[in-house]
Amino acid sequence: MTETSSPMAVGRPLIFISNDDSISAPGLHRLVDYVKDLGDVVVVAPEDPHSGMSSAFTVTDALRINQCEDYNGARMFTVNGTPVDCVKLGLYAVVPRKPDIMIAGINHGSNSGNSIIYSGTMGAVLEACMEGIPSVGFSLLHHSIAADFSLSAKFVTEIVSKVLDEGLPKGICLNVNIPSKVVPAGIKTCRAARGHWSDGYSRYLDPMGNPFYMLNGVFINEDKDATDTDEYWLARNFISVVPVSPEMTYSPAIKDLSRRFDCED
Amino acid sequence: MTETSSPMAVGRPLIFISNDDSISAPGLHRLVDYVKDLGDVVVVAPEDPHSGMSSAFTVTDALRINQCEDYNGARMFTVNGTPVDCVKLGLYAVVPRKPDIMIAGINHGSNSGNSIIYSGTMGAVLEACMEGIPSVGFSLLHHSIAADFSLSAKFVTEIVSKVLDEGLPKGICLNVNIPSKVVPAGIKTCRAARGHWSDGYSRYLDPMGNPFYMLNGVFINEDKDATDTDEYWLARNFISVVPVSPEMTYSPAIKDLSRRFDCED
Repeated sequence: MTETSSPMAVGRPLIFISNDDSISAPGLHRLVDYVKDLGDVVVVAPEDPHSGMSSAFTVTDALRINQCEDYNGARMFTVNGTPVDCVKLGLYAVVPRKPDIMIAGINHGSNSGNSIIYSGTMGAVLEACMEGIPSVGFSLLHHSIAADFSLSAKFVTEIVSKVLDEGLPKGICLNVNIPSKVVPAGIKTCRAARGHWSDGYSRYLDPMGNPFYMLNGVFINEDKDATDTDEYWLARNFISVVPVSPEMTYSPAIKDLSRRFDCED
Repeated sequence: MTETSSPMAVGRPLIFISNDDSISAPGLHRLVDYVKDLGDVVVVAPEDPHSGMSSAFTVTDALRINQCEDYNGARMFTVNGTPVDCVKLGLYAVVPRKPDIMIAGINHGSNSGNSIIYSGTMGAVLEACMEGIPSVGFSLLHHSIAADFSLSAKFVTEIVSKVLDEGLPKGICLNVNIPSKVVPAGIKTCRAARGHWSDGYSRYLDPMGNPFYMLNGVFINEDKDATDTDEYWLARNFISVVPVSPEMTYSPAIKDLSRRFDCED
């Protein structure tokens, strides 16, 4: 069952795109521009911005698909939900077959370090990865709506082209972060820097005198001295490529913890 | 800075509790009941249910803290946000000091297999883990609001007591799932079963004739023959304990992918 009508070109790769900044984000349109020559492009993106939505999905509400005007040869759809909803429902009801690749972004803002865990962009990518589709998330280290994505255009095209040609290891997706304001010095495959966000909040009083809070935390890099992290290479103007697994079990701890917790009644 | 007024008992462990089913969920109150003798309990839970919210957090909205009536000796607070918001803002503005343990649940419904990635319960647990607090999420394999948590009460108390006594390995939290309708046969530390959710949707027509969708997927266990997974042990009425890491880099893939992607301009 599909909401699309006209047939796709036969034999061309099918490229599925989503994001978390919504259908109207410039980064999404640039991603279409940079990959449109590599295949047939279908975009299913959130109606509204969903930054920081992680792998959240809609449990009880009604989801609707809305077809929008084509953009630069790409079919454009919105879903009134999260990035994961866009992937799940897009794969179920929009695309005519399993896509050859799923890409997300280009996110307005970094998803390096432990931001993977909060990122709606990477939530969408992990979802497609669990569905067995080679998947890549792209993020630019610049929050502005007017960010200049063009300096890294050829790198984005190249990474997507390579993944289309050769696939990715089973169960692994990629988190790609891109330095801003410079032509990237190159590409480095590396690990995400360990760290956490400082839980800073700004405290305000509303007109009734009641307090409310807004998050103002910053990333605390606990891997400052390491030379093999995304933070390290991004600071040196390289594009970072981090292989990511949706499996979160930490197997090395099982043996020791078994001794402490296991029992049989 | 703290929203609480009266001092905590000196020398007793500080137990921070959250969940994703909201402040009014019976599973939350049972968790308070089962651990209240182990320390001073502070609950910071979402005002409204937030199942499937993963590690989502509130980016731009105003967050408010609301103190509720004490329950069974526990101080009770709500935040008008996600489980992660409850942990972040709770740690920042509610508790008088860093808690000795953070526990979440007891969730109404399973978080075994790959459900960790979607779970708001585990989103809260991972958040506290990244803050360096020993953290454990509890989930009962029963969705009903009338689920009977009492059969596993002594196991929950025992796990929390052990973690309070001995801590957890740095950077590791626990995802505990509990069989329902039986006295558990024991506890097994194991790994999460690999799998994905089938993206089934029910399709409806609204009164205007426009289609909408609601998710009806089921978990596809890709580890059906394995005997070391949470799904395996839960099916045999054991409580499963899975060590979980918030780090999502898959390091074994870095070397091979470096050869394919790395370049320098």
